[in-house]
Amino acid sequence: MATADPTPVLASVRALIFDVFGTLVDWRTSIARAAQETLAPLGITLDGPAFADAWRAQYQPTMQRVCSGERPYCSLDVLHRENLDAVLRAWGLDDRVNDATRERLNRAWHRLDAWPDVAPGLRALRPLTLLAPCSNGHIALMVHLARHNGWVWDAILGAELARAYKPQPVVYQTAAAALGLPPGAVMMLAAHSDDLVAAAAAGLRTAHLARPDEHGPGRGEHHPSVPVDVAVADLSALAARLRAARAAAGS
Amino acid sequence: MATADPTPVLASVRALIFDVFGTLVDWRTSIARAAQETLAPLGITLDGPAFADAWRAQYQPTMQRVCSGERPYCSLDVLHRENLDAVLRAWGLDDRVNDATRERLNRAWHRLDAWPDVAPGLRALRPLTLLAPCSNGHIALMVHLARHNGWVWDAILGAELARAYKPQPVVYQTAAAALGLPPGAVMMLAAHSDDLVAAAAAGLRTAHLARPDEHGPGRGEHHPSVPVDVAVADLSALAARLRAARAAAGS
Repeated sequence: MATADPTPVLASVRALIFDVFGTLVDWRTSIARAAQETLAPLGITLDGPAFADAWRAQYQPTMQRVCSGERPYCSLDVLHRENLDAVLRAWGLDDRVNDATRERLNRAWHRLDAWPDVAPGLRALRPLTLLAPCSNGHIALMVHLARHNGWVWDAILGAELARAYKPQPVVYQTAAAALGLPPGAVMMLAAHSDDLVAAAAAGLRTAHLARPDEHGPGRGEHHPSVPVDVAVADLSALAARLRAARAAAGS
Repeated sequence: MATADPTPVLASVRALIFDVFGTLVDWRTSIARAAQETLAPLGITLDGPAFADAWRAQYQPTMQRVCSGERPYCSLDVLHRENLDAVLRAWGLDDRVNDATRERLNRAWHRLDAWPDVAPGLRALRPLTLLAPCSNGHIALMVHLARHNGWVWDAILGAELARAYKPQPVVYQTAAAALGLPPGAVMMLAAHSDDLVAAAAAGLRTAHLARPDEHGPGRGEHHPSVPVDVAVADLSALAARLRAARAAAGS
């Protein structure tokens, strides 16, 4: 659900910051393909999407150990690799995949393909506001995803700058502060209601982007399950809403 | 002086990181004009370039207090403002310039004009390597300078990410690490030999860019005063050298 009239909020937004995994990139399709292509030469055939789901399922529990303070901040490459090792063990493949192959497969997270609306949507948004990722992915990973998909960012914000992971409030607040803006002038965009709840609690504005197929056909958030400032189906729609709000506000 | 044959070094560079004040932007001309334009409505006429020089002269001593640990890291906006207050006092203008005017003038550092070769040079370099500023300016300032001058960066690196100021080695090392690269795969570009000495000591490769007019006509570094990997007169020349080195190395 979105607030009744988001026009004044949208007119006051000076920066949009973005969740990336699932929101901007289709990690599931990309990882499924990478797993199949990387492991096929070893004679391993597997259900790529199921493997991607298993790998990604390790993400929240691993991250939680950092958020709880049980282990210090480290890059997502490290966490992804540990999770890959765990999945290979669980799938009975531990003896068949050497270290170099695991490293190569782990790097697939740096080459995830974007959903089709993202590159044109970011181009439409760029004249309207500052744009930056606010992801749990580290800077190098974000840089590589941007180059891979032809995105232009004003800065790379998120976990590495804050040395903490979302949904910790410091990640959102550090992103706003880095842009020299109060949290209320920054809008967090995500396809995940829990990310937006945390952003709102940190004082940011929120935009929900529907990604109904993130976890497979029909298995994603069609709508936000929490109050947000605006909800859209693609990035170009958000650009149109922002433009209209600016025009209405005469700003 | 540059090393005899920088080709192998240039071929191995995976990222260029840039000093900004003086190297990419002509701070002196921009600040001189901003001071004159901002203070004229108050009936204050002054020697703009001399005022810019006086303001900038406070920079190193103020920064040194942070580098020495005498005061904690804070953004350049804070340091620039303190230095502006000091210059206004020294120039006998303390009673004539109110707080709002000082804030407006301080923001001139966010709107500095680039040297003419920078925008086309960065466009030529972008297909060849990752590009990021590694400045003592904070992220918001770098974002605003990039928008003002039409630059595209892969990330904003430098003082704010490292929570320290150049020439502390951690600033250069943090920049390389953020890109997921060993220091030796990253080349620091600056118009200042002291910056390059520090970068080299931190393990980075170095490029000197001549800015002979930084401090006024003929008053800038025409050549590096220390050994560097490559020395160029403009950014397009560096792009040509990089391209040639890649071609020679077949990479």
